[in-house]
Amino acid sequence: MTEAMIRECIEACLACVAACEECAAACLSEPEIDMMRGCIRLDRDCADVCALTARLLMRGSDLHAQACALCASACEACAAECGQHHHDHCQRCAEACRRCEEACRKLAA
Amino acid sequence: MTEAMIRECIEACLACVAACEECAAACLSEPEIDMMRGCIRLDRDCADVCALTARLLMRGSDLHAQACALCASACEACAAECGQHHHDHCQRCAEACRRCEEACRKLAA
Amino acid sequence: MTEAMIRECIEACLACVAACEECAAACLSEPEIDMMRGCIRLDRDCADVCALTARLLMRGSDLHAQACALCASACEACAAECGQHHHDHCQRCAEACRRCEEACRKLAA
Amino acid sequence: MTEAMIRECIEACLACVAACEECAAACLSEPEIDMMRGCIRLDRDCADVCALTARLLMRGSDLHAQACALCASACEACAAECGQHHHDHCQRCAEACRRCEEACRKLAA
Repeated sequence: MTEAMIRECIEACLACVAACEECAAACLSEPEIDMMRGCIRLDRDCADVCALTARLLMRGSDLHAQACALCASACEACAAECGQHHHDHCQRCAEACRRCEEACRKLAA
Repeated sequence: MTEAMIRECIEACLACVAACEECAAACLSEPEIDMMRGCIRLDRDCADVCALTARLLMRGSDLHAQACALCASACEACAAECGQHHHDHCQRCAEACRRCEEACRKLAA
Repeated sequence: MTEAMIRECIEACLACVAACEECAAACLSEPEIDMMRGCIRLDRDCADVCALTARLLMRGSDLHAQACALCASACEACAAECGQHHHDHCQRCAEACRRCEEACRKLAA
Repeated sequence: MTEAMIRECIEACLACVAACEECAAACLSEPEIDMMRGCIRLDRDCADVCALTARLLMRGSDLHAQACALCASACEACAAECGQHHHDHCQRCAEACRRCEEACRKLAA
């Protein structure tokens, strides 16, 4: 685990927090909100988990590997749901989740 | 500001976090989700602000008065919205918000 | 996993957040702060992880089992460190961590 | 309030979270930790408040102005304390706090 990998993972986590927050807010304004329930639910969880993971990484916590494993799960679930929707915010969110999942898997190993 | 007032405010904040989380989760499963957009939005903000306020109070932060003022605003807005819906989870949430707002106003003064 | 187990775990998490916040704040005022570095570090991590876990449980997130596993690790580490110090706040924190670890292990299984 | 101001403020908040987390972790390893008590305390508060403010801004919350006012107070206090210490991590943190305070004041107005 290099300093560059940690830095990359923190950035991926923070980008994912932003993408999830923006997607959840946009989903809450979509006309067909009935179809966005899963997105909103998973965006919230994913944003919360990514935010914690980023902070544990920033402070060099010994819990970082286990947190990264949890974060990878959160990102995977959110990407799977958001990826099914055609909205730009969903597609951007799915992409941010996949990058974050990948960065987290490296540190979780 | 007495120790009892602080303790009461922490408990009101934590009860409000729980009520908002439960209300948001339940709103996301309501058939008429179209009408619950505002609730979900404000539940999230209120839960996040109450959670931070509780922790600043627990640690005796100098920021607690200003945080309590923000928290009272968050609770007021959430109570006003949730109070308009007949669902049990909305009514419970509105009640928890009102108690938390009251406790926060005392410490914000 | 019963509703009572979830409720008990949420309460144990919130009690642990409070105990960790109070312990960290008290450690930062101890004359022999040099010996409290580990406590302060682990109190912070543990409070952050417990706070997230409580909220995921409150909202019925699918991530709750994995979050409980992370939380049990955080509590275990914090209890081991705080339990070595004779201060009341450290002993109270260690006790809250052990109860939270136990409640989390049940839901992580 | 323009989109660019919001974007700038979010970035300033996230940079401040990182600087505060790194400063707190480094302070906890400083030989003269006795002098770093205030830094550690304020780093924690500031990181927590900046993290919440960033997320409220990301989701377009109506609470953002009041949160930015709280955040500016947190940053001001942290910059005043960290600025008094010669450590690189303290100086970097003070600088991040000042930039974040400035960005927050614009949105709090």
